[in-house]
Amino acid sequence: MIPPRLIFAKGLLKVLDQRLLPDEVRYLAVRDAAGTAKATRDMALRGAPLIGCAAADGFALELDRLKPASGGELARAARKTADLLKAARPTAVALFYAADRMLGKAMDFARANPGRFSPAQKKELVNLLYKEARLVTREDQDACAAMGEYGARLLPRNCVIMTHCNAGALATMGIGTAVGVITAAHKKGKIKHAYSCETRPYLQGARLTIWELMREGVPSELLTDNMAAHIIKTCGVNAIVVGADRIAANGDTANKIGTYGLAVIAKHHKVPFYVAAPTPTIDLKAYSGDSIVIEERSCEEVTFVKGKRIAPKKVRVRHPAFDVTPAGLITALITERGVISPVSRSAVKKHLSR
Amino acid sequence: MIPPRLIFAKGLLKVLDQRLLPDEVRYLAVRDAAGTAKATRDMALRGAPLIGCAAADGFALELDRLKPASGGELARAARKTADLLKAARPTAVALFYAADRMLGKAMDFARANPGRFSPAQKKELVNLLYKEARLVTREDQDACAAMGEYGARLLPRNCVIMTHCNAGALATMGIGTAVGVITAAHKKGKIKHAYSCETRPYLQGARLTIWELMREGVPSELLTDNMAAHIIKTCGVNAIVVGADRIAANGDTANKIGTYGLAVIAKHHKVPFYVAAPTPTIDLKAYSGDSIVIEERSCEEVTFVKGKRIAPKKVRVRHPAFDVTPAGLITALITERGVISPVSRSAVKKHLSR
Repeated sequence: MIPPRLIFAKGLLKVLDQRLLPDEVRYLAVRDAAGTAKATRDMALRGAPLIGCAAADGFALELDRLKPASGGELARAARKTADLLKAARPTAVALFYAADRMLGKAMDFARANPGRFSPAQKKELVNLLYKEARLVTREDQDACAAMGEYGARLLPRNCVIMTHCNAGALATMGIGTAVGVITAAHKKGKIKHAYSCETRPYLQGARLTIWELMREGVPSELLTDNMAAHIIKTCGVNAIVVGADRIAANGDTANKIGTYGLAVIAKHHKVPFYVAAPTPTIDLKAYSGDSIVIEERSCEEVTFVKGKRIAPKKVRVRHPAFDVTPAGLITALITERGVISPVSRSAVKKHLSR
Repeated sequence: MIPPRLIFAKGLLKVLDQRLLPDEVRYLAVRDAAGTAKATRDMALRGAPLIGCAAADGFALELDRLKPASGGELARAARKTADLLKAARPTAVALFYAADRMLGKAMDFARANPGRFSPAQKKELVNLLYKEARLVTREDQDACAAMGEYGARLLPRNCVIMTHCNAGALATMGIGTAVGVITAAHKKGKIKHAYSCETRPYLQGARLTIWELMREGVPSELLTDNMAAHIIKTCGVNAIVVGADRIAANGDTANKIGTYGLAVIAKHHKVPFYVAAPTPTIDLKAYSGDSIVIEERSCEEVTFVKGKRIAPKKVRVRHPAFDVTPAGLITALITERGVISPVSRSAVKKHLSR
């Protein structure tokens, strides 16, 4: 139903250009790490878990292309490639996780094979990296399926649910994180209605999430972001579920701009607010939300919609791409390992040590 | 600085087409009540107080055009005209106020002059209606100036303020209601920074309010609506001011969609939330917000931006144009008569009996 987001073959990664959705299903051909990074920066490739999968693929492609001739060359090339990939989207920890994981594999190989590589060693390295990249994707798919299960169990019968941005199949290689919870619950007959906030400025909710929900046959409606409070108050919304770009060690969650406001509104209406994200999204190096740097993107992404200017020339604009929702506003974190609730530093720690 | 919104002459009303702002300053020529109603329905003419001023003008134009020949004819024509005008925007009570006020003048004249009209009576009627229409405009201008004064006094020094939609000069014949408070405070050197929420789907904040603030030299930035909570949390916002389309007898306030969510977010951050609106906005016939019918507008206004489709074909969309903010979330109502705070049924009643 949802077109494949990444089509990977040796030497070539085809990336679904999500900027053209839902009107057009077209792929960008990427042959190296720079191409992956560019597709990520340009927002053709988006969604934290998907960016991670693509980074793993991009890493493998790059090392296959560079063909390092020795352990030393490999170590240098691997570090440079990981850095290049990681610079593309500073908030998405899944990207860091995937790049560092590929880097680790490469460095292990470099240490085990310090001298000049034989043809067999070269082949072994490339196979090893391609295999690891496939594993990153497989794990993402499995994580989505597990989150769908755990999340669906949390929802009431006849659930009226709301989501923000796109944490759907299009943001992952599986069924999605937050939208995966909705579609999994829908398959169990639990969803009465789903609302998708359009998610300005990039309109991922209007272009991607509502399209996914329509394709999956979920009864659903689209809203502008500022309608959320009115709809929650008047339409019986009894659950909200969103994804995450990065979760600090105490459960504070960075996600698409608008998430924090929605969480505040949920609390006011006593509606449970769920965050669904795989454990690699949890960044133990971030002590709390205060340690998370919020990426400020270009003004033009706010002042132009589909190439049309919607604000005066020379206008000054803010464009924080993410915000941070404090753990205290989150009813539960849903990961591939289960549910964290209430959300606290100790509960997150315990969850990760399972 | 801000172009005139209405240019009135006998037999002709020129209406600034606000759909074209800020790119183009162009006027629609309106010669009757149907034209006024159409301009209102089509959103060329918007802003509750301005719609009221235009309705008064449209009423006078229509009766001048129809030239009723007797008291009976006048009464019939006046009722029909008022109904036509009032049907254009069901939520804006200023429209009802202005139409009913003109109707009252006409009916008084009809009662005082029941038979066939002499040429002198015809002339008297037309002059009376044009004069009353001018008075509606004058009173709106005076009310704006007074609200600006009262509102500016409420704000702290170095105020960082946020507003939603356009309750500016463009929404009135004066300096505006909510934006009038900002520009009046700016003239007193009290405004450090102002934020304008873009106000989807119609983008009145992006097209109109930020343009007004820029023209008035107020240091200001534009946001998407879903950035408000993040900006309030991180940028020291210490006041929010909005306008109103209708205020119930207990202070519950209907205003542009998104106002309610912003009020909830303000409360969470303990930021004062002000509503600035002239007393004709208070509808004593509405016992509380529950009695206010929320206008649901077309899906296309959400799914198309400047003629470009931003969501899938066949998508289902909600488009409540307004929401209701309970009095309990409003720190103060600012009217041309002063300030109501705390906001309660008895305080509103007392304020109106001044």
